[in-house]
Amino acid sequence: MDYQSILEKIRADVTPLFGQGKVATYIPALASADPYDFAMSLQLVNGESYHIGSCEKTFSIQSISKVFMYEMALSLFEASLIGRVNVEPSGNPFNSLIQLEYEKGIPRNPFINPGAIVIADMLTSHFGNNAYDTILHYFQNCSNNFSIDIDTEIASSELESGYRNYALANLMKSFGNIKNPIDDVLHTYFNACSIRANTVCLARSVLHLANQGIDPITNNTLLCGEHSKRINALMLTCGHYDASGEFAYKIGLPGKSGVGGGIVAIVPDIMSIAVYSPALNHHGNSLIGTKALELFTRYSGHTIF
Amino acid sequence: MDYQSILEKIRADVTPLFGQGKVATYIPALASADPYDFAMSLQLVNGESYHIGSCEKTFSIQSISKVFMYEMALSLFEASLIGRVNVEPSGNPFNSLIQLEYEKGIPRNPFINPGAIVIADMLTSHFGNNAYDTILHYFQNCSNNFSIDIDTEIASSELESGYRNYALANLMKSFGNIKNPIDDVLHTYFNACSIRANTVCLARSVLHLANQGIDPITNNTLLCGEHSKRINALMLTCGHYDASGEFAYKIGLPGKSGVGGGIVAIVPDIMSIAVYSPALNHHGNSLIGTKALELFTRYSGHTIF
Amino acid sequence: MDYQSILEKIRADVTPLFGQGKVATYIPALASADPYDFAMSLQLVNGESYHIGSCEKTFSIQSISKVFMYEMALSLFEASLIGRVNVEPSGNPFNSLIQLEYEKGIPRNPFINPGAIVIADMLTSHFGNNAYDTILHYFQNCSNNFSIDIDTEIASSELESGYRNYALANLMKSFGNIKNPIDDVLHTYFNACSIRANTVCLARSVLHLANQGIDPITNNTLLCGEHSKRINALMLTCGHYDASGEFAYKIGLPGKSGVGGGIVAIVPDIMSIAVYSPALNHHGNSLIGTKALELFTRYSGHTIF
Amino acid sequence: MDYQSILEKIRADVTPLFGQGKVATYIPALASADPYDFAMSLQLVNGESYHIGSCEKTFSIQSISKVFMYEMALSLFEASLIGRVNVEPSGNPFNSLIQLEYEKGIPRNPFINPGAIVIADMLTSHFGNNAYDTILHYFQNCSNNFSIDIDTEIASSELESGYRNYALANLMKSFGNIKNPIDDVLHTYFNACSIRANTVCLARSVLHLANQGIDPITNNTLLCGEHSKRINALMLTCGHYDASGEFAYKIGLPGKSGVGGGIVAIVPDIMSIAVYSPALNHHGNSLIGTKALELFTRYSGHTIF
Repeated sequence: MDYQSILEKIRADVTPLFGQGKVATYIPALASADPYDFAMSLQLVNGESYHIGSCEKTFSIQSISKVFMYEMALSLFEASLIGRVNVEPSGNPFNSLIQLEYEKGIPRNPFINPGAIVIADMLTSHFGNNAYDTILHYFQNCSNNFSIDIDTEIASSELESGYRNYALANLMKSFGNIKNPIDDVLHTYFNACSIRANTVCLARSVLHLANQGIDPITNNTLLCGEHSKRINALMLTCGHYDASGEFAYKIGLPGKSGVGGGIVAIVPDIMSIAVYSPALNHHGNSLIGTKALELFTRYSGHTIF
Repeated sequence: MDYQSILEKIRADVTPLFGQGKVATYIPALASADPYDFAMSLQLVNGESYHIGSCEKTFSIQSISKVFMYEMALSLFEASLIGRVNVEPSGNPFNSLIQLEYEKGIPRNPFINPGAIVIADMLTSHFGNNAYDTILHYFQNCSNNFSIDIDTEIASSELESGYRNYALANLMKSFGNIKNPIDDVLHTYFNACSIRANTVCLARSVLHLANQGIDPITNNTLLCGEHSKRINALMLTCGHYDASGEFAYKIGLPGKSGVGGGIVAIVPDIMSIAVYSPALNHHGNSLIGTKALELFTRYSGHTIF
Repeated sequence: MDYQSILEKIRADVTPLFGQGKVATYIPALASADPYDFAMSLQLVNGESYHIGSCEKTFSIQSISKVFMYEMALSLFEASLIGRVNVEPSGNPFNSLIQLEYEKGIPRNPFINPGAIVIADMLTSHFGNNAYDTILHYFQNCSNNFSIDIDTEIASSELESGYRNYALANLMKSFGNIKNPIDDVLHTYFNACSIRANTVCLARSVLHLANQGIDPITNNTLLCGEHSKRINALMLTCGHYDASGEFAYKIGLPGKSGVGGGIVAIVPDIMSIAVYSPALNHHGNSLIGTKALELFTRYSGHTIF
Repeated sequence: MDYQSILEKIRADVTPLFGQGKVATYIPALASADPYDFAMSLQLVNGESYHIGSCEKTFSIQSISKVFMYEMALSLFEASLIGRVNVEPSGNPFNSLIQLEYEKGIPRNPFINPGAIVIADMLTSHFGNNAYDTILHYFQNCSNNFSIDIDTEIASSELESGYRNYALANLMKSFGNIKNPIDDVLHTYFNACSIRANTVCLARSVLHLANQGIDPITNNTLLCGEHSKRINALMLTCGHYDASGEFAYKIGLPGKSGVGGGIVAIVPDIMSIAVYSPALNHHGNSLIGTKALELFTRYSGHTIF
């Protein structure tokens, strides 16, 4: 089956699932997403790309931004990351404080909220209070698309209602693992989460992770090869909160989800993938997006295992 | 042995312990306390009082204020307290978030930080942003001493460095158990903790708890009899964080400690007690104060059991 | 109101509650209890006694035996108890392993299952595999009733289905806090739990705790005065699992419950109380028994606070 | 660099590390291992093999047996596994009871002790009390070596001192997630853990996982292709207890360790690897074995990411 046919077959297969799951409602801008939206994009290393659905429609990438923030941190601070954020799966929901208290303010990994907040703190120390601009620019670079922007309305809503994230940041600050003022750190963090993109652009943005850190189309080196592999490893073990194991087990590709309904995934040496469907399962991952990726690995035979 | 002799014997007995324990250092105003200070005051229901040591020297009452805040809340909101704060010992340190997350933002009791923060929230809702003034006034009333004041320097320091308390408040707000803005609630809370008093005044301030809620000297009713008993019960089971059991086991009197180094205790129908010594044991309770109360129960034979 | 009238009023008041709560069903012998049974006995220090309901009907005392086991341990091993079992409220259900793992196999107190299992281990070391006989004899002594016996059918059922208790014992043994073979220790433990008594006898069995350790009727010294007070303190802070705080708050008397439906309580210097009603609330304490004691403190005015 | 040169370079590189780490000491047979032993074997899908060190010396495979037990369970019971054991990383040590109690007796994954004990229970139900014989035979089949045997001395020692595993099994039985008598289940489990093998044989035993479930040398189908991928996914996310994330991050190959000092790893489509060095790091994984695999991926460039 060629890739376009696979995408069409996936769309047909997931159609009966529309109506299941729940759109994130904790802020108005996310709550207004259309649960019947669906898009999927394949970006091959060889330059080809395949799309289906509303692939031009932008949405909030949310936690997918954690991948780009951690890429920047790996490049800038590699050694300093030791002791500030670990690389272990958490076995807990994305915003739990329990493990964080037992482990004295050192987050399990950079893909759960407290880990990404520590990374936001490090980037804020390095780039100042406009660190989010640098993160946006890095994402634009990865996507080779300089029109991408931050949805400031979403960023403001997050700041107003993000009590759990304030709790995480304050708990870590009480352990000395946040160096900047809480408000500055969360300003960086929430703005990065509020980048809007469509699946075309999201698939393109992680293509370098399928190619040892080098964008195969522009030949820009975004990341060294070793770091690229480590990002993939981390996406595999920690990319989907407390459903990461199941994602690896059923899908077998490195990936990262966001509560906006997007998921990115990598087939090393071959392609990157983005899928969008805003209704979430109870782990906070796109229900139909997860299913679509499972079908993709079945129909294409692509897996890292 | 008469009470004054008991106080003298206690002072002699605890003298070798000076130098043990550690003064609280998380804010400068507490760190400067003199670890060799010691004071103890007995205020009898019959009006007699006995004192030893620096009983005129004021210190920060800190968590002892939780007793007065909860007294006010019991009188004002009794029924509404259900579902907002429980009355069980926590089995955990005073500022732990773990249990609070498992129990969905409902604190175990009003004498650990999250519980007192909920009470501060309720009082803030009722009295507005100057709720701490009303708390101060209630404490003055209980003490029959209207010169007592809040140490605003301490209150400011707490506000600046109280990350753990901000974490607790934000976590509870994420569960909907804080109704006012975090800053307002902690303003109330930290100001109440920053009341300064000496042992003379502290012993007097809880005398009504030895007399069914009525100040036996002024005959003012501060609390109904049933509430007075409940405060005592709560002090016995929850008054000393995760050392409450040991305090009940060894001392056998309702009591409440603060990290400023003060402890109050009640001998029902007979007297109230205040002791001060700022060096703390690893549970955050006054090391010498705890020992002094243990000696007091041994020499006086007073216990509720 | 005289005591007999109080008992009658209590029975009238609790009658509408029959049908609420659930009889323990984990072993057949407990499951067959009649949820409409009710008995209450007051045994005064002055020798008077008052009873109501089926006060001659025996039932399994279950966890109430933990009081007698700990009395024996305090008398025999006082110093050796340090480091083997603490005296803090647990804040957790009676059979939780979580805290026990975090705290490296040292139970929070002797009135939750793991604590009583450690005590059973110490008594087994001292008295050998028939330790339960010595425990029974101590209970007979306390009750001044030598016809009391162990229900061996219940003991066998417990041994067969007590997986959670086996888990607790094995976890503690992995930390080195159980010295004898697991089966021997649980043999002691389950036999002690399977003592049968009625409320007349149960009230009598704890009378010495209202009188500084001395049975006021026989003048036998069962416990030294200091130990007697410590048992009372422990019953107050830890006597009702994770509802101990509420019991202290609402009832204000030292007490201990068992899943067989019995509760004992102490009014120091005045009397001991036993109540029986087998339907349990969700904490595992007798629902109507708890209510009856709350009414008793209200009508009699007796409380330690 | 050819594979033999890589092995030699690895041996040279790890030589300075001998003396670090600690041999497992909880049973005598493991404690007697020589911490200076080292062996590494590569078994290519094309039939070639490369070895270094004491590759003929057998050792206890311990938790590596969990891979084979789960392979059998996947083939036999696939659908029935749902609800009995999950496929998520645990974020906790291999023998923790905490998560197991919170999650009501359902283990996080089959590669931590409680998960493997559930699998042992299922195999015991299916094959009876000699289930371990069938497991041994499956392992012999995978290795194409029928002289491999169980070290019964080790199995007996485990049974005698395995209190933590008894605690896990009893806790799960209290939740109804163990169907057979505890002793039968642990007999199966400990015997399977006590298989002895050398690295030549261990590398061969997992070769089918590098080849979609088919032994490429004998052409025997041991597992269907999809199951083979799932085993690899599980080894990647859960193969090294609470250091699984770090193993994926640094090494990037599916693998499974045992406290006997062995580790197996898979390079899909290319080869399987076994390494042996009995001194363990604080996670319970072979310290030098882990380092050797990290060097192997660096020198060979093999990784799944």
